[in-house]
Parts: sequence; C-alpha cells; structure tokens
Amino acid sequence: MKNQITVIAFDADDTLWVNEPYFRETEEQFAGLLEDFMPHHSILAELYKTEIANLPLYGYGIKGFVLSMIETVLRITEGKIDPIVISKAITLGQEMLNKPVVLLDGVEEVLKALHGKYRLVIATKGDLLDQQRKLTKSGLDHYFHHIEIMSDKQEKDYQKLIKHLDCKPEEFLMLGNSLKSDVLPVLNIGGHAVHIPFHTTWVHEHIDHTIEHENFYQMESLSDVLPKLTE
Amino acid sequence: MKNQITVIAFDADDTLWVNEPYFRETEEQFAGLLEDFMPHHSILAELYKTEIANLPLYGYGIKGFVLSMIETVLRITEGKIDPIVISKAITLGQEMLNKPVVLLDGVEEVLKALHGKYRLVIATKGDLLDQQRKLTKSGLDHYFHHIEIMSDKQEKDYQKLIKHLDCKPEEFLMLGNSLKSDVLPVLNIGGHAVHIPFHTTWVHEHIDHTIEHENFYQMESLSDVLPKLTE
Repeated sequence: MKNQITVIAFDADDTLWVNEPYFRETEEQFAGLLEDFMPHHSILAELYKTEIANLPLYGYGIKGFVLSMIETVLRITEGKIDPIVISKAITLGQEMLNKPVVLLDGVEEVLKALHGKYRLVIATKGDLLDQQRKLTKSGLDHYFHHIEIMSDKQEKDYQKLIKHLDCKPEEFLMLGNSLKSDVLPVLNIGGHAVHIPFHTTWVHEHIDHTIEHENFYQMESLSDVLPKLTE
Repeated sequence: MKNQITVIAFDADDTLWVNEPYFRETEEQFAGLLEDFMPHHSILAELYKTEIANLPLYGYGIKGFVLSMIETVLRITEGKIDPIVISKAITLGQEMLNKPVVLLDGVEEVLKALHGKYRLVIATKGDLLDQQRKLTKSGLDHYFHHIEIMSDKQEKDYQKLIKHLDCKPEEFLMLGNSLKSDVLPVLNIGGHAVHIPFHTTWVHEHIDHTIEHENFYQMESLSDVLPKLTE
C-alpha cells in the first residue's frame, strides 16, 4: 500500500488514547447507584437501550451519555428515587470529561516516523469541545495537518472528508479500532483500512462477520504499520 | 470592501435562522417548573450562573444547557423535588433539538446573490450534530463551500479557520449577530465584520462599548450587505 497512500487518518478514542474503559468504569459506578432497584446486568441493558434510542438526537459523546444515564435512572426507578442519585450521575460525567489522556503504546513513535512523509489527520466521533480538549491534553496536535470531528462515520461522512482533503479514495488510509466505523465504510468507498483492535469495544461498534478485502490489513498494534509504510 | 473580499463567513444561529428565542422560551418553561421554590427572575439567574460555570467543560449547545438545567433544579431545591421535574427538563431539551428551522428574512435571496461570486462559509458554535441537523433542515447547505462548527469564536479560532480556508485576513468577511463572537475577534485579526443585530441576544454575548473600526459595518438586516458586495 505504501506507494499509493498520501493521507493517513487516525481514529482517536482507543486508537491513539484510552477511552472506552472510562465508559465501562462509569457504567459500573452507575449500576452501583441503582442496585436496590434492579440487577446489575439489567441496569446496563436499560442504559444501553436509552443510549441507542437517543443516538439520532444526541449523537456520540459524554454529554449525551450523561443525559441517557439520567433518563435511565428516572425510568428504572419510576421517579421513586432520591434526586442525589441524579446529582451523582452528573458528577460521573464531569469526572469523565476531566480524565487524563493516556496515550496507547507506540503512538508517539508512529506519528513521529510518519510525520513529514504523509499528511496525517484525525478522524473521530464525539463531542466537539471534548475531543479538542483531549487532543490538546495529548500533546500530539502538532503532528496533524487536519482534525475532523465527525457526527458519524458512515460512507457519506468519509466521502465528505476525502473531498475536503482533496485526495483520491485510493490515496486514503484509515487506522482504527472499530471495524464498523473505521474499516468497513472506508473499504466500501475505495480507501485502505487498518484494524487495530482494542481490548474494550462498545457493543454498538461490533460486527459479527470477518472481513476479507485487498485493501484491508489486520494488525496487533499501531507500531505494526511502520514496516508497511516506511520501509 | 467589495474588492478585497474573497470569503464570506456567516454565523448561523440568529443570523441565518431563529435560535435564541427557543432558549428564552425554554427558560420560561423551566422557571415555571420551579415557581414554588424561588421567584422567576432568581431561577433564571441561577440557571445562568450554572451555564457559565459549566461552559469551559460542556461548551456551547443544547446538551450542555439541559445538563445545566438539571444541575440547577437539584441545587435550587436542595434535592427536595419530585424527579418528574427533571424528566420535564430533559423533554424540554429534546423538544429544542426537534424544533423546526425558521429562516430569517432575506437569507435565501442573499445567499443566492453571493453564491458563485464569493466562497461562502458557515462559522458557528454549538453541538456538532445539532448544527449539522439544522443546516440540513434549512435546505441551505448547497450554498456553502465549507461548514465550520467551532467550540469557541475567539481570535485563535478565527486564525485557524482562515488558515484552513487558505485566505488572508483582509480577504475574510464575517457576518453575525454577536459583537463579541462574530465581530470583535475578526476585526482584531485583520478581517472585516458586519454586525446584524437580532432582537434577542444571550446576555453572555453582550458587550458594553461601541465599536469604531474601518473594517466594521453596522447593518439593519442581512439584505443590506448586497449593495456593498454585488454592485
């Protein structure tokens, strides 16, 4: 692929830095607040149901997640709840927004090696301000030519991004941890994609089939792209 | 200014379409929910205090506004509240997200007249998905070369936008209803700015001095820019 690629786009959450474990941790604490009302796994199922129902309205990100936690509290408890629980859900969300940014192994080394050889881009979903804040905290911003915070990652969203970057699909390589959001839509529009799994993935991002495609590469860690792109 | 300008950027909320009245209307309904606890104007003052405190964390937009409403309910009532009130605050927010997009007078005519003569851009604050949805609902998206949804509108944010658009500050004209966000920072970095006041402006966007600057133009309505830019 090396000879074709001019633009490399990185997913951010769980590709460059830790994200999903913070959601899992918060969900555990959230379920703990409601254990008098429902078994743990049922609370998580109810929360997921609320999140999916609200996704078209709220989009991805922590603020929508907190609103879904609050809505779930009200529904599960049928309003028979000490409002302090809602206060705690808000605090959980604010703690998430203030989490440190923890880079994944090899990230800085990979960016340093690719910088100057390719146009490097971030393509991520989530809340605008939150993602910008994480990028600033990460100290990685100077590696990137462009940051695209996307409300969704479907084929049309990537088509728009590629048009905006003024490159051809076959010159575009996406790296990320989600087959559904980072890999499939990119392959479908003629781009290249590398899947680097992260140990925790939101169930909404799961797909239940394997991918075989000439432009698809499965790797263990981000550092594995270097031999393919620099040697 | 006509000879210099190549890019015209429009603020969206209350410049292209109605926005602030929906917030005012929702605040009134919100205050009505809590009238047993506090006088109307005190509730609005408490809500504003919460919003401003949360702005660095949540940024602009409806989701952060709803989280601030909920936090205000919990604080004002010291948790002694029927949770149904919180449920109603969430519903108020969802209703805001589903409001129709009502274009202001002359908007389509102005865009039609300028399209093809200048690069037209939207530069707006707010939630990513919500602003994209409003643009789609507006039917105006085909007029714009680029949409920039900004987490803030300070000088550095405009500098980034101008660099991204690959134009010089003196070729850039911003039109909007907020002196603080759409005019002052643009003038300060060497651009041109038109102020078109809207009857309702959030108090956070107020400034208490007048502006005199060779690149500043005060107008009554958006249509007033046409003689300056097309004749």
